[in-house]
Amino acid sequence: MIRVGIMGYGNLGKGIECALRDAKDMTLTAVFTRRSPETVSIQTPGVPVCFAGDIEDWKEKIDVLILCGGSATDLPEQTKQYAKLFHVVDSFDTHAKIPEHFANVDAAAKASNHVAMISIGWDPGMFSLNRLYANAILPDGKDETFWGKGVSQGHSDAIRRVEGVKNAKQYTIPIEEALQKVRAGEQPALTPRHKHLRECFVVAEDGADHKKIEETIKTMPNYFADYDTIVHFVDEETFVSEHSGMAHGGFVIRSGKTGLSKEHTATIEYSLQLDSNPEFTANVLVAFARAAMRLASDGVSGCKTVFDIPPAYLSDKSGEELRKTML
Amino acid sequence: MIRVGIMGYGNLGKGIECALRDAKDMTLTAVFTRRSPETVSIQTPGVPVCFAGDIEDWKEKIDVLILCGGSATDLPEQTKQYAKLFHVVDSFDTHAKIPEHFANVDAAAKASNHVAMISIGWDPGMFSLNRLYANAILPDGKDETFWGKGVSQGHSDAIRRVEGVKNAKQYTIPIEEALQKVRAGEQPALTPRHKHLRECFVVAEDGADHKKIEETIKTMPNYFADYDTIVHFVDEETFVSEHSGMAHGGFVIRSGKTGLSKEHTATIEYSLQLDSNPEFTANVLVAFARAAMRLASDGVSGCKTVFDIPPAYLSDKSGEELRKTML
Repeated sequence: MIRVGIMGYGNLGKGIECALRDAKDMTLTAVFTRRSPETVSIQTPGVPVCFAGDIEDWKEKIDVLILCGGSATDLPEQTKQYAKLFHVVDSFDTHAKIPEHFANVDAAAKASNHVAMISIGWDPGMFSLNRLYANAILPDGKDETFWGKGVSQGHSDAIRRVEGVKNAKQYTIPIEEALQKVRAGEQPALTPRHKHLRECFVVAEDGADHKKIEETIKTMPNYFADYDTIVHFVDEETFVSEHSGMAHGGFVIRSGKTGLSKEHTATIEYSLQLDSNPEFTANVLVAFARAAMRLASDGVSGCKTVFDIPPAYLSDKSGEELRKTML
Repeated sequence: MIRVGIMGYGNLGKGIECALRDAKDMTLTAVFTRRSPETVSIQTPGVPVCFAGDIEDWKEKIDVLILCGGSATDLPEQTKQYAKLFHVVDSFDTHAKIPEHFANVDAAAKASNHVAMISIGWDPGMFSLNRLYANAILPDGKDETFWGKGVSQGHSDAIRRVEGVKNAKQYTIPIEEALQKVRAGEQPALTPRHKHLRECFVVAEDGADHKKIEETIKTMPNYFADYDTIVHFVDEETFVSEHSGMAHGGFVIRSGKTGLSKEHTATIEYSLQLDSNPEFTANVLVAFARAAMRLASDGVSGCKTVFDIPPAYLSDKSGEELRKTML
């Protein structure tokens, strides 16, 4: 049995706890939190909730620690720190900072002979894998990624920083017409506005100027100015009842050319539709935690991403069984 | 440069020749045929066409041999034979015989210190990979594979064996209603008839009994009896002008449950739309030929499938570049 620890018990940590129930070869050993452990109640009887500061005591009792913190400030510190004690898996998703994070984590993991998997999830993660496979197979082609329909945490946060906004949620919605053109292999030139619509649900403070809020959102650089944006004002009750979900998804499509005169089109599409974004991400993390153990038992150490993992290592089935049932 | 040989110059072999033009790290060294080499003319100036029987002379001049024969009689003999001389890649697609083929090829490749990749293509191949990834991520779920719209060689051959049939082509067509239900995560119970329609275009011999041919096709066990089948009779000219294409494609969909009470649905879909089935298959084979060389340079030998290959090995880019551009 692979002994797994969870660092951080937010939506992702809760998802890991659920995912481990379906993993017959893994067991949840402990949950770590920076809060007072007695204030955190988990769903798995008999499993202790421990203070994050005491984690060194668990060095011999946990094989893989799954890190469920945020990419902005938690993971850049935590992953390299905990890679000194355990095999670790994180979902670091700040694309631009991946090379730096990789280098830091790689050094720590190699020094302590651990495997550290970073940027695991669906994007980065499964979407990245599909970009890589599709690019290797269709070198002469073009990629497009569409996200949604789903909640963008970053955009929702940006709206909440607008004066007079009490709460907000932003849905990223892929534009069907663009999706169809890409699927048809037309390789259209698409601006951000062609690809995604941004729909916002805003709870305003009492007496706030709705018109001004709407204008501020729609003209916000980087986040909204380059898109068609729809702003709805809703009351608190509607917001809670209709906009508390965590659904998300998206599409990675590559179309390319084959043939002597590049006369044929081939299109590869990978898509996800997820009722719960954090639970799905958790399932991906758990599969890669299994792979971390396999790599470690091969004598491998250092930082790895989805690109480095033989797919069979994600499964609890033997090579023989996989070839018989899935090939 | 990876020096590549092609064994067999049919549709797949021609596809490999095209695919190698886009592979900057690979070069086509020779094409081998069981026909008289002077009767075979290829599209790449300066590359020799050689008799298959003389292939031992090329032992030091070729790194990877891509085998483009058929699964029924060619590959079961060729792959294990040529694995003694080169790293090899084949597209063996008789699912039920994969374990036996694997064992034979593994022994030959290990004995001569070569890497042999078998069952590479899209099904088996990319579809298998997507089944594996999706099963590892969503252990509590259900898979469905739909094929088409595209030509089934096996079904076309079966029709051609019917008395009075001069030529025939059979299109496998996925049924949209079933596809939608699977996509929606409904996990419906589907019989073959629910999933695929079979549409046949038949050129009959002069004076043949059309009604009898149609009846024979529609009631043919295994191939057609379990499906709704449409039979069209067309003249030779129409057949050649409208039914010479080699388009194909399909969908691998897994839907599963996540959450504490399995209250959430997640759906993973991978699909291909290919104007040319053999050219796309060739592109997949070429990417895995590159991976064979990488594995060999790691000191690995033996038989491998898509399940065993770290995805990064399919790309000609460095790990650093992949992380920067695709993760």
